[in-house]
Order: sequence, then structure tokens, then C-alpha cells
Amino acid sequence: MSRDPVLRRAAISWARGRELTPQRLWPVLRARGGAEALLASSEAELAEWLESGERARAVLRSGEDLPAERWAAQLERAGMRVVTAFDEEYPSLLAEIPDPPFLLYAAGNLERFRLPAVGIVGSRAATRYGRDVAARLSRELALAGVTVVSGFARGVDEAAHQAALSTPGGTIAVLGCGLDVEYPREHAALKKSVASRDLLISEFPPGAEPKPSNFPVRNRIIAGLCAGVVVVEASRRSGSLITARLANEFGRDVFAVPGSVFSQTSIGTHELLRDGAILCRGAEDVLAELFPAIGTARTAGGAAPPRASAALSEEARRVWETLRKEQDASAEDLAQATDLPAATVLAALFELEEAGLAQFGEGGRYGVRR
Amino acid sequence: MSRDPVLRRAAISWARGRELTPQRLWPVLRARGGAEALLASSEAELAEWLESGERARAVLRSGEDLPAERWAAQLERAGMRVVTAFDEEYPSLLAEIPDPPFLLYAAGNLERFRLPAVGIVGSRAATRYGRDVAARLSRELALAGVTVVSGFARGVDEAAHQAALSTPGGTIAVLGCGLDVEYPREHAALKKSVASRDLLISEFPPGAEPKPSNFPVRNRIIAGLCAGVVVVEASRRSGSLITARLANEFGRDVFAVPGSVFSQTSIGTHELLRDGAILCRGAEDVLAELFPAIGTARTAGGAAPPRASAALSEEARRVWETLRKEQDASAEDLAQATDLPAATVLAALFELEEAGLAQFGEGGRYGVRR
Repeated sequence: MSRDPVLRRAAISWARGRELTPQRLWPVLRARGGAEALLASSEAELAEWLESGERARAVLRSGEDLPAERWAAQLERAGMRVVTAFDEEYPSLLAEIPDPPFLLYAAGNLERFRLPAVGIVGSRAATRYGRDVAARLSRELALAGVTVVSGFARGVDEAAHQAALSTPGGTIAVLGCGLDVEYPREHAALKKSVASRDLLISEFPPGAEPKPSNFPVRNRIIAGLCAGVVVVEASRRSGSLITARLANEFGRDVFAVPGSVFSQTSIGTHELLRDGAILCRGAEDVLAELFPAIGTARTAGGAAPPRASAALSEEARRVWETLRKEQDASAEDLAQATDLPAATVLAALFELEEAGLAQFGEGGRYGVRR
Repeated sequence: MSRDPVLRRAAISWARGRELTPQRLWPVLRARGGAEALLASSEAELAEWLESGERARAVLRSGEDLPAERWAAQLERAGMRVVTAFDEEYPSLLAEIPDPPFLLYAAGNLERFRLPAVGIVGSRAATRYGRDVAARLSRELALAGVTVVSGFARGVDEAAHQAALSTPGGTIAVLGCGLDVEYPREHAALKKSVASRDLLISEFPPGAEPKPSNFPVRNRIIAGLCAGVVVVEASRRSGSLITARLANEFGRDVFAVPGSVFSQTSIGTHELLRDGAILCRGAEDVLAELFPAIGTARTAGGAAPPRASAALSEEARRVWETLRKEQDASAEDLAQATDLPAATVLAALFELEEAGLAQFGEGGRYGVRR
């Protein structure tokens, strides 16, 4: 719970009222040294900073807003958790974005907020390929102890949540409506599973309908909770691209999964890749970038076991003898030393890499693999 | 033909003999101011530069190697062309690589060497997807007047050559064996078509068998002929990756086509994309990068026709009013001016882009689309 009941009460009051938005209040709050300092300011000062007397009075009122506090307590008695930005349960990465929600309504296991988190998002109209990638990626990340965050929509989101259930990492579903609103209807069973084993959250109060304008606002929470976001499939103007742009603005890594150039739902992901997103082939790419300390079983690729040099081609053997002598050389050095054409040396080096004997290293040089 | 019959004779002699390789001779030739200067040097000088008396004598002999000249004339009478590095027909981009072939055996239309050229290469064991992409890409480039260069192998190469036949750009097939050697056997009909309408070339003399060590040597010619190379599909250690590395070393652009993360033949292309290759979705991506003056009909995407602002959401309308007034603004400016959450503004901007009203421009700012 909160380190300070007055701040908690204030946050609930801000969220319930219409005067103050996170976007308006946080910059002032940060510039003035925090919420305590703000609540201790005069109405005149607040009115100047917030450019409105009404907003100033809403701030001053909020520390004593007992009805707001009672309303939250009532929700909690009914089984919902109300986590304010000043509570210790509040996720720390989310607190870093420009406009963190004043509070989150939550159902389930708040411990999920403490794990490393990755967003997996994508098209509602996902293809079979998109759902398969989302499921595999999600399961591998979640088995490695990473919480998979997504938006509880059809398609990619659903596949990601489903695959992460009952794993060490689990999943967090961020809704664009109140926690008690059944949307999408066909996810009722999934919702029960997430709420019982994992975590369901929303910035929108109970009863709030899933208005279209809620979704981009919700997407900032997905981006804010995560160290990185993977876009699995996205059409040209998909909402997932908004999540990606927000993640980028928050300084989080953006990954995109490649797909068929003929697929409409890969147009957005290929656009992201052209704009500098990191290509994601599977969980290992995400873990290597974000959490290098966490290992995972490589599902594809991986170094082949070293092969006897006897199986090498004539050219590869000549290059290998020179490389073993020099320990470290450029392809050009090797071409000169062996008097083989540069292209032949490159092919020989490929063969040596495949055989686990040589490796491509810093500055375009080749070395003997240890 | 050659500007100088002595140089042409010398080049044929170097190619026929075993003493001199392009890799050995070109650096000396360039350092000493060209072939004429080299042929006029003393045996002692040549022996020093080439680190061998035998090589020096081979150079001095070459200018008067009449048997070599007669041999080439005989091939030409039989219908084959012998193009030396000193002939004006020799492709100019190929002359720029570190070790251009001394001569190329050719059959067909040498005018193909004068057109802008792009390599399309990939796996012999291409999937249906790889062959489809290669064919579409090749046809679009060739219809736009670009010559499609490839290695005449099964799979991607075959699809690329086939699709470029009978187009303005046409195709160049670079063999890893003599022009008269039937390899691969099932390409006999394709070979006839390429030789009659387009161009078949090889650095290897008539009768040369397709030894495995020929292929990387051949690949440097593909890379050398082209302004850029597109790898359509490639497994982990595919020969196409050697072509890509060579293209990169020659300062040519490398493109890679994305595909399914589950496909073995996309492992190599995804690796290239991770290493900085340009993502290629179709001909437009290649043309935009290499030959921006050449236009092509976009086959996917393209800007939607402007939509009436009446069809916009409430939020998009508010953002549009502000943007129209400011003409140019960041998403943050717009969020402040409209008092909408930043995420909502991003979504509204997407909607305006889709409607053809706004555009994303320099420095992350948005502007009114003209």
C-alpha cells in the first residue's frame, strides 16, 4: 500500500475528477519536487502552474477527498485492487513515462509487476502465422521468467496471453475498458484465467465502455510497463504501430517480426524494420537485447558441433592452416597468404564457421573459435 | 572491340595461362599506371612487383601471344564472344572490383552490359514463396529497364532469369562452368532463351566443369556487375551470403527479403537484415535506393486518396484544426495545444495520415500534406 495515505487519497481523487489529467499534472508535479510539495503549495501558485484556478482547487481538495477514498475502499472490498502511482505496488517502469496513470484498477497477482516485462502486440486480424509466432514467442519468454504484456484484443494479443498462462513469467492484460466490462465477449474464459493466475489491469474505472479513443491511451500503458515491445503483425495503420511509436518515445526497444512480403498484416512490421526496429525471429533475439543474463534454449540456428577438419574442402583446409597459425586475420590477409581468390577464401571461411572452427569477430576479422 | 589489340591479346594470354591470377595482377597493374606501362616494364621490375620471375616472363610474353589470340578468334568464329577487360564492351562496374576477370566468354546480347543492373540471388532449394518473390521482383525491375543478374542455378536464380526474359531490362546469367557445359541439365531450354534474347556469360573457358570451388569465384562477378544485390531466400551458410558479403565489400547495396521466421530458407536473409541489409519488399524498394529516377507502379501500399475531414473522429478533427493552423508541429506541440493525451494525438495523426491530410516529415514533425 501507499507510503502516504494522503497521496493515495489525492491520486484517487485526481483520477475520479475531470479537472486533472496525467499529461497536465505530472510535468508540474515533477518540476515542483513531488506530490507532497504540490499539495503544500498555495492556490495562487498552483493556478499559475496549472494555468487554471479550477485545476488548482482540484489539487488542494484532493488530499482530503474522503468520498474518493471510500469509493476505492469499496471497490477493494469487492475484490478489485486500486493501485495508485504513490503505492509501492505501482510498476516502476510505468512511473518513468511522461504521463503515468494516476491509478490502475487491477485483478489478480500484483507480483507480475515485479518481473521483467515485454509487450507482444499486433493485429486483431492476425493470420495463422501471426498467432503462431505470438504464441511461440510468448511461451518462450514467459518460460524464461519474463511477463508478457498485451492488450487483450483478438488475434495476436489473445495468442500471446493464452500462451503465457501457467508459466513462471505469466501475463499482464491491459484493458481499454473497465475491468468488469466483458470485451471482447468471446474472451470471457481467458479473462477468468488471467485474473486468477496472472494480472488484469485498466486505467479506466469499472463500467467504462471500450470507446475507440481509449485504445491509444491504453497502449501507452503497455509500452510504459515494458522494457521492449514486439510487434508481431500489423497492417498499415494498425494501433500496434502507435504502441511501437510510444515505446520508442519512452526509450524502450521496439522489435518487429518479419513475414511474407505478400501479407497485408506484415506491411506495418516491415515498415517498422525499415525505420530501425530490431528484427525479431524469436525469444532469443528479445532476451539477447533486453535481458542478456537470461538464457533460453535456441529453437533455431545455434552453432553446429565442431566438425573434424578432415571433412573440409581443399580450399577450406588451406585457409584453416593459415588461420590456425595466425590466430586472427582478415579475409584479405588470408587470400594473400594462401594465394586463393578472395571469393574462394570467403567461401572457405563460411565452411570453417559452419564447422565450428573459425568465427567472425570484431572489425571484420576472423579468428579461431575457442 | 579493344582500343588496343596488344592489350586484348595480353588479357587472353593471362586468362589462358596458369601463372597470373586477377587477384595477383590487378593491384600491380593499377599501382604501375595500367597495362601498357606494365608491358613496357623490365623483367627485373616485373619480377620484383609480382614476387616471381615466372610471372614476370608470363607478362612479357603475353603481348605477343599469337596462339592465344588465334584461339579466341576461333571461339568467336564459332559464335561465342570473348570480351577482355580492355575491350569497350567490358562492363564498367565490374572493372571497379579488386580482381576483375581478365576476360568473359559471352553468348547473346552484349548491350545488356550497358543497362543498370541488379542481382537477384538465393537458395537453390527455394520455397514456393522464394520463387514467387524472385519472379515478381525480377519482372518489375526488368520491366522498368533494369537488367536482372543471377547465377543460373535452380530455385531463386531460375525464377529470376525466367521472369526477366522478353522485357526491356532482360537478364544476364553468370555461369560457374564453361558456356558449352549443360548445367544444370534441366535448364537447357532456359539457356537457349537467355543466349538468344539476353546474355549468358562465364569467366570459365569452354569445357570447364562446374566445380564447387568455381561458385564463389563466379559470385564475385554477379556482385561486381550490379549496383545492388537482393538476396531473396538463403539458408544459414548459403552461397548467396557470399555474394552479399562480396557486394558489400565492393560498396554495392545489399538487400534482403523478409520471410517466415519458421522457414529454414529465411534464416540467412534475416541474418543479413540484422547485419544492416536493406529490407526489400518489392521492386520499388530497390529502385528507390539505387535508381530513384526510375519510377515503378507501387504494387502494395501507396497513399490513399485524400478523404473528407467529415469522416474523421472527434479527436482527429481537433488535431487537424490545430495542425492546419500551425502547418507544422510535433506530436507534443499538438498534445499541448489540444489538451489531448499524447497517445490520442498519435492515433489522431495516424488517422490524418491515412486520410491523406497530414504527413510525417523531417525531425519527427508533422505537416499538412500538399
